Amino acid sequence: MRSLVVHEILRRAAELFPDTEVVDPAGRTSYAEVYQNASRLASALSERGVGPGTVVGVLAVNDRRFFELHFALSMLGAVIHPLNFRLPPADLAYTVEHAGDDWIFAWSGFAPLKEALGPRVSNWVWLEEGPVPEGELSYRELLESGRPEVPATADRVEETDNYTLFYTTGTTGRPKGMRYRHRDILLGSLSILHHLALHPGGAQAQAGDVFMPLIPFFHIHAWGTAFFVPYLGAKLVLAGRGGPEEQLAAIRREGVTWMNMVPTQLHLLLEAAGDASLPLKVLTGGSPLPRGLARKAWAKGVRYSLIYGGSDQLATAISVVPPGVDPESEAAADELATWLLPVPFAQVQVLSEDGRPVPKDGRTLGEVVADLPWLPPEGYYNDPERSRRAYRQGRFFSGDLAVVREDGRFYVADREKDAIKSGGEWIPSAVLEAVLSEHPGVAQVAVIAMPDERWGERPLAVIQPAGGALDEADLRAFLEQAVKDGRIARYWLPDRYVFVESIPLTSAGKLHKAALRKQFGLGS
Amino acid sequence: MRSLVVHEILRRAAELFPDTEVVDPAGRTSYAEVYQNASRLASALSERGVGPGTVVGVLAVNDRRFFELHFALSMLGAVIHPLNFRLPPADLAYTVEHAGDDWIFAWSGFAPLKEALGPRVSNWVWLEEGPVPEGELSYRELLESGRPEVPATADRVEETDNYTLFYTTGTTGRPKGMRYRHRDILLGSLSILHHLALHPGGAQAQAGDVFMPLIPFFHIHAWGTAFFVPYLGAKLVLAGRGGPEEQLAAIRREGVTWMNMVPTQLHLLLEAAGDASLPLKVLTGGSPLPRGLARKAWAKGVRYSLIYGGSDQLATAISVVPPGVDPESEAAADELATWLLPVPFAQVQVLSEDGRPVPKDGRTLGEVVADLPWLPPEGYYNDPERSRRAYRQGRFFSGDLAVVREDGRFYVADREKDAIKSGGEWIPSAVLEAVLSEHPGVAQVAVIAMPDERWGERPLAVIQPAGGALDEADLRAFLEQAVKDGRIARYWLPDRYVFVESIPLTSAGKLHKAALRKQFGLGS
Repeated sequence: MRSLVVHEILRRAAELFPDTEVVDPAGRTSYAEVYQNASRLASALSERGVGPGTVVGVLAVNDRRFFELHFALSMLGAVIHPLNFRLPPADLAYTVEHAGDDWIFAWSGFAPLKEALGPRVSNWVWLEEGPVPEGELSYRELLESGRPEVPATADRVEETDNYTLFYTTGTTGRPKGMRYRHRDILLGSLSILHHLALHPGGAQAQAGDVFMPLIPFFHIHAWGTAFFVPYLGAKLVLAGRGGPEEQLAAIRREGVTWMNMVPTQLHLLLEAAGDASLPLKVLTGGSPLPRGLARKAWAKGVRYSLIYGGSDQLATAISVVPPGVDPESEAAADELATWLLPVPFAQVQVLSEDGRPVPKDGRTLGEVVADLPWLPPEGYYNDPERSRRAYRQGRFFSGDLAVVREDGRFYVADREKDAIKSGGEWIPSAVLEAVLSEHPGVAQVAVIAMPDERWGERPLAVIQPAGGALDEADLRAFLEQAVKDGRIARYWLPDRYVFVESIPLTSAGKLHKAALRKQFGLGS
Repeated sequence: MRSLVVHEILRRAAELFPDTEVVDPAGRTSYAEVYQNASRLASALSERGVGPGTVVGVLAVNDRRFFELHFALSMLGAVIHPLNFRLPPADLAYTVEHAGDDWIFAWSGFAPLKEALGPRVSNWVWLEEGPVPEGELSYRELLESGRPEVPATADRVEETDNYTLFYTTGTTGRPKGMRYRHRDILLGSLSILHHLALHPGGAQAQAGDVFMPLIPFFHIHAWGTAFFVPYLGAKLVLAGRGGPEEQLAAIRREGVTWMNMVPTQLHLLLEAAGDASLPLKVLTGGSPLPRGLARKAWAKGVRYSLIYGGSDQLATAISVVPPGVDPESEAAADELATWLLPVPFAQVQVLSEDGRPVPKDGRTLGEVVADLPWLPPEGYYNDPERSRRAYRQGRFFSGDLAVVREDGRFYVADREKDAIKSGGEWIPSAVLEAVLSEHPGVAQVAVIAMPDERWGERPLAVIQPAGGALDEADLRAFLEQAVKDGRIARYWLPDRYVFVESIPLTSAGKLHKAALRKQFGLGS
């Protein structure tokens, strides 16, 4: 058996859990049916020339068809390229060109993008029902033309064959591509599940849970849920295009117990829930979890864990409840929102500029360097120059800044490029943002660097007020208290405050600091 | 990073959980210290010529030194051969010869075996303190001569290098050897932990548990605990040579929450506990769990899971509480004692004699055939003939008989060679034994085949009474009721009953049917 091959996961699910449901807004199916459909698709695509190494883009939300494509392409030894439809069209077109997509499966709502994606892709398959342009295919048509047997190619796929190619959102420069083999993406995905299963509390995942990922498939295959949910044989609920209200209805209707989402989505979901409690296990990450949001979620019954990783390293660490701490206590809530333990097989170091590990004092910032068995073998795809900086000695130099505690847990304070270098010392903008966001008058906040003749850089706080009266003096007094409480250092205090109507976000829902810096004429 | 290399597991534990304890009857140590000792040992052995491929036997009970050797030998790329000291000396000598052991680490209590192990092994290291014979070494001496740094060889070991070689107990013919690579033994071991972590109820294992394996290291490295406990970073308690009383004391003193053991050991532990409750999670297997023992254990607070596997296949399946069943109910207790779900990555088929899967009717017996990513690449070590029967098309033909239920769970009724072929139909002796063992007058029971002119074979029940009055009529009436209850078929009823003072057990604590058959002149 080829243990670490993607479609083997589904084969086993279809055998052991044939009737377990896979649900999306269009209806219900089962692992047995998903397996049969994936086999049909694979045989139909095989006859049309898709085979080992063919790159197939998918431009769609999380639904059952996208889920089926994960396994159909695996059976062919083809490479799936989940397209990030939130990228600006020019960047999206760049990724299609750079990846060398030969086929694109697309939701018809994305048809207007077709022109931007250029003439290089000659094979289009439309996921929805209805008429399709001359010479193009519908998903149903393709499916019906296939045979229900698993194609012979399926047994020739090896764990070291390439399987997926996806791109960073790229706030600086062009998106960067990462190509992973079957083995890499599976080991990286399963390590998330295993870590969550082994550690009680927070977003613990177990057989019997019902999973609904809100993270889109184009972000590391919904943070690995595309693979680890069928591996576990659990019910999978796909959210399609629904917003928070539809998500809430699906949670209640399907008995969802486990979800993943970025903090922004958690905020929206809590808002939609109103006064109702929300007893869910939630894996969150992608940006820091503001303390106010964490507390609000906890009070409503959300039990969360924080994941640290990314497209260029997959899973690296997840917060856990430390030994001896009551998983229902406020101390557990704070731990789970901040302190990270490397996932199985992951080795993490936090290195100072001289390349040595920072002291385990919980204060000294260094760069997170991850030694992971699932790093992309080639580094960034077709990009040796940028690979050279990030992938060295078999490790990934993340550019993220963290502190390490005595017990080896670490806290990611900031991205290096977002941190502010003042008088030779790092000021973590994300920590300042977290503290400022606790002020009731602040809706959103971003802290960015402004050039300073004496210090090199100094912090500038960009504030989106919540609506009431708010001025600089309020915020200064608020931060003064945080200095007294020992939460921030005095030299971190922002030199300037600016009030804006709204703060731009990236396609992944993170603060778009590059856009802000541009807006304020501070470079990119 | 070489993800699936044995000593990487310890490296990570020493980094993330340096102070977590490893305890044995001689004292306490920590993962940091175990890592340092393993490094010292490795460097000392390296200087004495131990390197890639050197085979090193270990003749010892579960203690800290044996645990350290697991990782020291991994760092050298050497092959560990855990010696089964319960084998008859001639068989043990055969395994030393067959494996090609160059070194033996031994407990001094096993010194009398030295002569039997022959002159081929020139390097002996004695694990205990005290004077050693001229030209031989003590463990402490060796350790103290090493350097505390991890030797350079450690980073050259690959997951596809050989790591371990161990032997079946071999009730028929010579013991069979299985050689596993780092990757195989780790994937097989971790699959046990992952399965146990993912499924609530029974012997669920989690961070925070305290582990004490009673399975000796020579049985698949204590069923993988040598690797998966440090992988989890949990406290490990090693039982040394202690019997049930000492085990009980260690459980209470160290706060043990999770153990593994064969049913016989569970029986002894319950006896030692007397009226006290025993709130433990126990993974059991190696032979069927008699219903009476299961119920007694459950009533005392033992929450168990049953594992199916073996030296020649590692882990294959573990019982789970099915969806919708209360993990504290009697139904859960019965499920956990019988019905098996394949572990992650394992695919199991139960095949009839024509090679087709048996119907999922819970009644039709077939052979268990396992498709596992961690099967030994060469089959039986240096034994192509016996490999040909057991390892075919990348699968393991176990020779065990099972039935499959509609939900895909299977129940191992008997070993094929122990089952009785009567009129072309299998009679599972183990099921008859399980039912008979429920009779209060029965202490131990074995059902074996006796030749029969008409039917080919018929069952003979060998009974070791519990002490009170017991005769054949009692047992016939008891089984008659089991027929009426639909638990057994009428044609399974034994033709003959024999009462004996004691039933011989194998070195693994299983019924020694070969010895019994010999005793009754029924062939081997």
